[in-house]
Amino acid sequence: MIEIEALFRITYGLFIVSSGDRTRGNGFISNTVFQVTSAPPQFVVCCNKSNYTAGVIERSGVFSVSILEKETAPEILGRFGFKSGKDFDKLEGMSVKYGQTDVPIVLNAAIAFLECKVVSTIDVGTHLMFVGELIQAALLDSTKEPLTYLYYREVKKGTAPKNAPTYIDKSRLEKQKTADTFKKYRCNACGYVYNEENENVKFSELPDNWTCPICGSEKSDFTEV
Amino acid sequence: MIEIEALFRITYGLFIVSSGDRTRGNGFISNTVFQVTSAPPQFVVCCNKSNYTAGVIERSGVFSVSILEKETAPEILGRFGFKSGKDFDKLEGMSVKYGQTDVPIVLNAAIAFLECKVVSTIDVGTHLMFVGELIQAALLDSTKEPLTYLYYREVKKGTAPKNAPTYIDKSRLEKQKTADTFKKYRCNACGYVYNEENENVKFSELPDNWTCPICGSEKSDFTEV
Repeated sequence: MIEIEALFRITYGLFIVSSGDRTRGNGFISNTVFQVTSAPPQFVVCCNKSNYTAGVIERSGVFSVSILEKETAPEILGRFGFKSGKDFDKLEGMSVKYGQTDVPIVLNAAIAFLECKVVSTIDVGTHLMFVGELIQAALLDSTKEPLTYLYYREVKKGTAPKNAPTYIDKSRLEKQKTADTFKKYRCNACGYVYNEENENVKFSELPDNWTCPICGSEKSDFTEV
Repeated sequence: MIEIEALFRITYGLFIVSSGDRTRGNGFISNTVFQVTSAPPQFVVCCNKSNYTAGVIERSGVFSVSILEKETAPEILGRFGFKSGKDFDKLEGMSVKYGQTDVPIVLNAAIAFLECKVVSTIDVGTHLMFVGELIQAALLDSTKEPLTYLYYREVKKGTAPKNAPTYIDKSRLEKQKTADTFKKYRCNACGYVYNEENENVKFSELPDNWTCPICGSEKSDFTEV
């Protein structure tokens, strides 16, 4: 028996993991960044093989981690979390610094960053784990708290993108609940689900200028689940 | 340049990772537990090679994760975090359930638990990463919040044991600060440091029945740093 709610009790942060160089880079939202050794300091990031950034990390051998602040704008989460760098340059128009290895580091909404050089890559099935040795770490804003996955889920009502390690197939989750008469509407752009039961407002009654709280898509971009 | 304070912005939970069987088991406090894939659900735990539990996981091929509640008693953190199972049976007197694989699962202070079977082991230097496939997950208490490493550090004033991936050599940290006239006292049992500068009370002025907030050791068990 696997109770999916139990898995949501594991605490994670939220980060933009970036890779590439000065000519072309990309980044994605990750909740899977953690230190694995202290001497030398090594960090692991976990990345779906079908993520555009996975290939970029493999080719460049470097990655950066931007630690996001608690009140990160939904547009940043939408841009890096629910859209693919295959289709457009996610870094265009962003505030980007280049590290000692020329890896791009996204500064928007970042309270600190790490720069790492890949020392090994581990295949764990659908995902790759990149082990990186830390070459730079900087604190940018000591006054702000980091964004946690729990806060993102509960307060921001965010969901995990399909490629995330913590992605939950909602149809499985629903089977564990009793049927209800409320409806749900999913954002076609980012996957965010508006659940009438939690919001106490019918989707049809939301104003026409209402937008997705995660990625800013318009009301017409939602489909009933 | 590595600013150590930047590393403290990475969000972690706190867990008891246990292993073994019905006759002999052991567990330790870890902040490094995370999901790496969702299909199938796989989780990684990271363990110092010199930790007694590392050998137990290697031999038994199973581990459990108890997700700790926010107000976990210092005695639990001291027992599992700062003492070695080489010297005594940490599970004795604890509330323990045995999983489908007979792995012990510590229930004290747990709001949820996972049971995993090791599918691969990765050597990352001082530590081993065990990748486990999830075979059971249960929510025990949905009313309580999980304990985070940040809360433990800031509110409980806890430090990382020497074997933790996030252990910080305080002598390095001190070099980044200016010298001060306040004194520090370290708990011989758990490594917790009482810093007069932060507490605004001289250590010598603390009452004689004052005990270590982490592991409950007596005042006489502290040594000036």
